[in-house]
Amino acid sequence: MSHYQQTITIQTSGKSLHKITSKVAAIVADSGIQTGLCTLFLRHTSASLIIQENADPDVLKDLSNFLAKLVPDGYDYIHSTEGPDDMPAHIRTVLTHTSEQIPIANGRLVLGTWQGIYLWEHRDHSHRRELMVHISGE
Amino acid sequence: MSHYQQTITIQTSGKSLHKITSKVAAIVADSGIQTGLCTLFLRHTSASLIIQENADPDVLKDLSNFLAKLVPDGYDYIHSTEGPDDMPAHIRTVLTHTSEQIPIANGRLVLGTWQGIYLWEHRDHSHRRELMVHISGE
Amino acid sequence: MSHYQQTITIQTSGKSLHKITSKVAAIVADSGIQTGLCTLFLRHTSASLIIQENADPDVLKDLSNFLAKLVPDGYDYIHSTEGPDDMPAHIRTVLTHTSEQIPIANGRLVLGTWQGIYLWEHRDHSHRRELMVHISGE
Repeated sequence: MSHYQQTITIQTSGKSLHKITSKVAAIVADSGIQTGLCTLFLRHTSASLIIQENADPDVLKDLSNFLAKLVPDGYDYIHSTEGPDDMPAHIRTVLTHTSEQIPIANGRLVLGTWQGIYLWEHRDHSHRRELMVHISGE
Repeated sequence: MSHYQQTITIQTSGKSLHKITSKVAAIVADSGIQTGLCTLFLRHTSASLIIQENADPDVLKDLSNFLAKLVPDGYDYIHSTEGPDDMPAHIRTVLTHTSEQIPIANGRLVLGTWQGIYLWEHRDHSHRRELMVHISGE
Repeated sequence: MSHYQQTITIQTSGKSLHKITSKVAAIVADSGIQTGLCTLFLRHTSASLIIQENADPDVLKDLSNFLAKLVPDGYDYIHSTEGPDDMPAHIRTVLTHTSEQIPIANGRLVLGTWQGIYLWEHRDHSHRRELMVHISGE
């Protein structure tokens, strides 16, 4: 098989970073692909993907604080009918990532020791987020 | 066919967001690929790519306003011989995206309902921008 | 061969941008692939990748100055035990890129005339950075 796809659904609970490394790794294992490329694509415009430190949870707090200050919630946006957290969520998505790629070697993601994969929910309320995992290889 | 490439040329008209979703979708259809990966690569350093809301044009205005404020035009840069809009265009490109990846399933891009693909021109004058669309799959 | 992988190791020397275009191009040539996709993946969370102007070194200085101001070093972070340059390095990585993709046509990367590939070291001291180059194609 050279192209393999599976969708992960993640129920978020307001602004937060959800570690999804093990879910993605399980799909890579399922695919049986030994040498290839894993592409992650998030089907949303107010949540995003990052690859970041997986050890100290304080890193995630600092990341959240930084982005909350850089792109403040509020009504100082033209697009404000969906609430004070919607337009900043779009901007935060643009400044981070909708897609990510991680090579696969020896049947495993080649993530560095400290790298984790995170889905970043930028809205205040819970959302059902769909992440497409696409794997190509042999 | 497993790798298919086509270049889209877009004539921009100063700072603006150009929706290119349908142009990319047409190339995906031309490729005949049913399951695969579509990679977009912009061959420039002062224009960029984003995937964002395709419904309310005010979202695009807020995005533009935000980035104009975060990375102001002007002569407060060392690299200023190409005009007050050149160095900020490079910075805005770095903060957004030069490449994007979107999986293809059932012959179509798996974009979410609200996702559109945009080329973001960061220079003041019109430019001819080249976007390479690379499709792999089966 | 349809999937080809090689790791580049780069010894950095504190905060700096390292041009790696020719190293990546050499691996593309080694692969023998004529039409395909080159994916770069950096196995770290405090260094990142960008594709930017390869001509005027002042562009790199302005980029560095901008990011140093936007994400200042210091102890105003919860995660500060690894030094005043660690948490800002994580944030700067999130705002730039861990992976990049460049199509290959006629055996060469389709980079634009002014595009160079850079590894951006965000820490103050020298680090040994591993970049995985993954090439798929035919």
